[in-house]
Order: sequence, then C-alpha cells, then structure tokens
Amino acid sequence: MNALRGVFLAIAISGAVFSGAAKADTIVATGDLGLVVERASGSLLLVDQSERAVISRIEGLGDLSHASLVYSPDQRYAYVFGRDGGLTKVDITEKKIVNRVVQSGNAIGGAISDDGRLVAVSNYEPGGVRIFDAETLDLVADIPTGSKTIGLVDAPGRKFVFTLWDEGETWIADLSSRELKVTKITEIGTNPYDALITGDGRLYIAGLFGEDGLTAIDLWDPEPKPIRVLPEYGRGQKDLPVYKMPHLEGWARAGQEFVLPAVGHHQVLWIDAGNLSETGRTDTYGQPVFAMSRPDGRQVWVNFAHPLNDTIQVIDTVSKDIVHEFKPGKAVLHMEFTPRGHEVWVSVRDAGKVMIYDTRTFEKRGEIDAESPSGIFFTSRAHRTGL
Amino acid sequence: MNALRGVFLAIAISGAVFSGAAKADTIVATGDLGLVVERASGSLLLVDQSERAVISRIEGLGDLSHASLVYSPDQRYAYVFGRDGGLTKVDITEKKIVNRVVQSGNAIGGAISDDGRLVAVSNYEPGGVRIFDAETLDLVADIPTGSKTIGLVDAPGRKFVFTLWDEGETWIADLSSRELKVTKITEIGTNPYDALITGDGRLYIAGLFGEDGLTAIDLWDPEPKPIRVLPEYGRGQKDLPVYKMPHLEGWARAGQEFVLPAVGHHQVLWIDAGNLSETGRTDTYGQPVFAMSRPDGRQVWVNFAHPLNDTIQVIDTVSKDIVHEFKPGKAVLHMEFTPRGHEVWVSVRDAGKVMIYDTRTFEKRGEIDAESPSGIFFTSRAHRTGL
Repeated sequence: MNALRGVFLAIAISGAVFSGAAKADTIVATGDLGLVVERASGSLLLVDQSERAVISRIEGLGDLSHASLVYSPDQRYAYVFGRDGGLTKVDITEKKIVNRVVQSGNAIGGAISDDGRLVAVSNYEPGGVRIFDAETLDLVADIPTGSKTIGLVDAPGRKFVFTLWDEGETWIADLSSRELKVTKITEIGTNPYDALITGDGRLYIAGLFGEDGLTAIDLWDPEPKPIRVLPEYGRGQKDLPVYKMPHLEGWARAGQEFVLPAVGHHQVLWIDAGNLSETGRTDTYGQPVFAMSRPDGRQVWVNFAHPLNDTIQVIDTVSKDIVHEFKPGKAVLHMEFTPRGHEVWVSVRDAGKVMIYDTRTFEKRGEIDAESPSGIFFTSRAHRTGL
Repeated sequence: MNALRGVFLAIAISGAVFSGAAKADTIVATGDLGLVVERASGSLLLVDQSERAVISRIEGLGDLSHASLVYSPDQRYAYVFGRDGGLTKVDITEKKIVNRVVQSGNAIGGAISDDGRLVAVSNYEPGGVRIFDAETLDLVADIPTGSKTIGLVDAPGRKFVFTLWDEGETWIADLSSRELKVTKITEIGTNPYDALITGDGRLYIAGLFGEDGLTAIDLWDPEPKPIRVLPEYGRGQKDLPVYKMPHLEGWARAGQEFVLPAVGHHQVLWIDAGNLSETGRTDTYGQPVFAMSRPDGRQVWVNFAHPLNDTIQVIDTVSKDIVHEFKPGKAVLHMEFTPRGHEVWVSVRDAGKVMIYDTRTFEKRGEIDAESPSGIFFTSRAHRTGL
C-alpha cells in the first residue's frame, strides 16, 4: 500500500505540474505554426510564428537537400518530399513521423489535392508522377512519363499539373472521377525546368532552359494550349553562366503584374497579368533565386545565387525601385512571410539561424537557431492553391 | 492527514488523466474548423469541414442577430461581435467562452489587426470605433466619431479603416507606432452603408445609400482621396424598394474583375479591377445579398433578399452567365467556401440546417443541424486581410 501510495504521489506531483503548465504551453492551435527544413541533418524544426520560437525538432527524414512540403487541410499533417524519393508524413500535433515511404530513387517536389485526399510526388528517377492516399500513403495512381518530371502543382478540382523536361510537354492529371484522365499539351518548349501556377489556379507558366522565353497555359481554356511569353527574353544566345536555377515557385503577384526572377541575368522581370506582355525589368544585386511578394503585393523580396547569396533586396512594386538592401549573412536560402505579411522569416544557412524581420520598419524582431536551415513553410499554405 | 491525502489523490487522478490526454488532445489542429452563428439562441456551432460534422455547441453569447467574428492568427480564438455590443472571446480548442465585455449598446462588426494583437469594433450606439487588446480585451483606444460607424476593416500595417454614415467620411486609424494616428478622408458621398477592402488591402470601396454610385479609396496613395465608381449606377432616382441592404463584405474578385451585388436591382455588377469602370451586369433571380467568389474566381454564388431568399444562383465568371440555380430551402442567409473552394457550406435558416455542396458537380455532400443558422466562418479567414 505504501509503495502504491508513493506512485500515486509521484503522479500527483508530476501530473499537477503538467496540468499547471498545460494551459500556458501545451495547448497549441496549428494556425501560426511552421516547419523549417534542416537540410544537412535530415530534420525539421517545428516553429511558432507568434512566439518567434522553436517548439521542437523532428528527426529521421532522410536526405532533405532541396526538400519541400505541403500541409493537410486541417494543418495537422505535413507531407515532406525528400530528394531521396522519401515521402514522409509528419504529425505536427504529436511532433513525430507517422508514416514514411521511399517511393522513388530521386524526387523533386510534390503537391496536395484541393480536397486534401491525394498527395502527388514528381520524380527524376524513374521519371513520372506518383499519387498517394493522403491518409495511408498507399499508392493510388502511377503516371510514368519516360522523362524527368518538373513543375508539379495542384489545381482546383482534384487535378495535378506537371511538365516533362525531356519531351517539353505539360500533362494535366484529373482525378475528380473514379477514372484517372490525363490531358497532354505538347510543344511547351525545349527543356522546361520549373513551373508555377497562379493563386487562382488558372495560369500555369513554365520556364525554359533550352530556349528563350516562357510558356503559359490557360487551364480555364476547354482546350488548353501553349502561349509564348517574353519570347525576346533569353538566356540562350548570350550563354550566361547560371549559378543556380531560380525557383519559379518563388514567383510573385503584385497587383496586376507578375514578377519573375530572370535566368542568368541580374534582373527581375515584370509581366502584365492580363496580356502576359513585359512591363519592365529591375536590375538586382545578383542572379535572383526567389522573388517573393509580400502577401499584400506592395513589396517583392529577392535573394540571390552563390556567390552573392548574403544579400536581400526589397523592391517597391509601384515604383519598381529597390527600397531596401541588407545582408542577413552567408547563404540566404529562403524567405517566408507571415500570412498577412507583417513579418518575414529568412533562412541563413551558414549562420545556422532563421532571422525574423518586420516588413515595414525592416527591424530585426527575433531569431532562432537551426541546423543549416533551408525551406520555411508556414501552415497557412494549407489553404492556398499551388504552394 | 487523511483529508490532505484525499486532496492529493483527487489531484492525482485528475492530473494523471489530464497529462495522459495531453499529447493526444491538447495540441489541436485548427486548420479546417469553423463556427456557425445560431442567431436565435445566441450560440455558436463548432464544426469540422473535413468531417462535415459538428464538434460542439458554445452558448451564452448574447444577441447574435447580424453577428460576425474574426480569428486570432493561431486559429485558437474567435472574437465574436454581437449586435448588443458584446465582444466575446471564444477558445475553440477548449470549446468555451474565455472572456466577454459589453463594449457598447449597439455594434456592427469588427476586425483584427494583421499582427493579431488588436481587435476593433464598430459601433452604432454610441458611434465610433473601440480597439481592444486581443489577449485581455482591455480597451486600448477609443475613437468617437459622432456618427454611426460602418464598413470597419483591417488593413496591412496595424491599420483599421472605417466610414461614417452621417458625415460621409472614411477614417484610417494607424496603430503601428505608440501614438494613434487618424487620417480623415472627406466627401465620400451621402450615407455610405457598407464597405469592403480588397484581399491585398489596397482598395477600400464604400457603397452609398443616399446617392448613386460607389466610392473607392486607394490606400497605397500617400494622400488617399475619394474616387467615384459607377456614377451612373443608381438606386436613388428610381426609388426602388430595398428589401435588405446587400453585404459588400460579400464582394467577389474574379480574375481581373470585381462582382458586386446591386442595391434594389435584380442584378450583380461587374467592375474592371484596374480602372474601376463597369464591364457588365448579370440579371439575377432577386435582389442579391451576397455575391461570393469561389476561391479560384471561376464561379460567383449569389443569394437573395426576402421574399426570394430560398434560391441560390451560380454565375460563371468567364461567360457572366448563370450556370446553375437551385433551392436549398427558405431563408438562405450565408455561404462559405472551403479555403480551396471544392465545397461550399450554406446556412438555411428556416430549415434549421447547414447544407454542404460540391462546387463542381453541385451535388449535396452533407448537412448538419443548426438552430436558425446565419453566418458561417471558417478558421482560414485568420490568414486573410479584410474578412
């Protein structure tokens, strides 16, 4: 009896302490959480935007170089796409991995359907797209392409859109009915290297590595076809060295214009969202990697390729002028805005820090320690198309 | 000693249960939750979008006729604005009211600042706007206006924008520094009755009851001034009976156009988002109350004023034609899309139901029971401006 009572007391004390702390610390709603990819250590940091703090580290995700992730609609699960073909399902409320499959030898990105039921992964080796049940990670559909597959995005209506590097084709996979339907759009251009979809899910735009310009597709067109964009904008002829391919996922929509990082040039390009004509260029400090719009579209934040990757420039979208420039440190790899844009989180790989800035005053608001941080992904992405 | 041990044991048991449940229950994924206002009973239904189900009912919110609410950035708290001047803070993870103040005699809507720290309420009696600390509900700022105050919205940069019915002025309250700064824009027009702000926080548009047209303000302009919109569109001259004022919060952005419910006419109006000129009108079944865009902008769903409030029409935004019409039941009061638009929830007051439809097939996917349901508010609103 004494021993039993001792156990009870121990529980009493730890239980009381725990429940005392619970109200302050352990009830966490997921709306302002995020995950930071720690690429070297194959881990994720679970972070709290409002507290500007780390909640915990989740380990064992394999090769996270060039990793990305998407969230379930309830913002409980993250699906992490590793370079090694690993698809890992993480429960951020339990702070642990709940499932993991290695679905290919070499993967590059993924997407989640608008209803949150399907997760798709884009593969280099073997090429193609594989689609999994979001709950179980069971394979639902396998779409071989005979080509490296890039620019995979979700589109409204249980659709995924992706592009074939070797063939220059864009495919639309429609999973809205029981039977998978694939629409193939040919003559996209030579060696499309990445693509984006606009926030409304209407326009899909692929960047080309093997020829000048970009190619847009209007997904609302009953018979979608390639539309050439900026045919006079090129990297081909001049044969500029490209230190790092820019990310088109980092495109920005600012009012009536798109802003895209140029390939090989120290410039960002402005495109009219209506007629897709060029409306301007802004000279930048280096070759842009990401050109990301603050959610209100008034600013675009740009980071750069090695060896100029210690700097960020901020462009005002009305004047198209650079209004701020600063050096957070070596290897600025990614930037993520809070959903309504009052702050921005910046990965500085070589400093081992994520730094947090006010987007109006540009003051530093905080920082957290991270192991070689790269991508930052806030849970608000769950509610947006094409991220 | 026995008595003391009894207390310990009681704590032991409740503490152990609590800590045992902690890992599973106390971190709550809030991304796909929502609240439905039950106007007659002064209660809220906490609902789960993915499960199409009720989680629980929260009672004791006072007069919820014409009530609305906003969410904290972490999607844990809802701030409910009641007609009786009550401001109630609800914890949706604990499913209970955590604070409530009656801050005026008669209120009409509210907003939350972009950083989630301030909650503002717009008042009829007495007029003006009061701003509260989001954590404590302590009064932070009191802005008397000497007028009924309408069209209160948040804008980026810790700003609130609102309009004076009697004076025809729009005021911008800037709380980004320690000192409150108020900018007053005069000559908005006669009796502005409601207003909206665009999703990027740039344009504020007020509807006028006392004269024709609407008035827009470009909040990016260093010296914002009134811009007349659709001056030839009127209700004034014809003196049409207006059964219910439409809600401008139910404005829709579809691609390059806005869609607004007309006042007194059986029409919605299309406006070019760039130059604010009229681009078309679509005749509708009744006087529109809400014209709400599916998140991808391809469809606009419209409900109508009494006595034609049993019907919904769906307009295709490319053709501007009505592509679907159906009758969910008497008194369709509100519609809310899932964040990525695959489904829509519809309040049907007199049926005592919220009905859930697929937005592509228009099939009914589910329904839940509710007491006189009116407004439906999903937690994804936390991450958007001006809702």
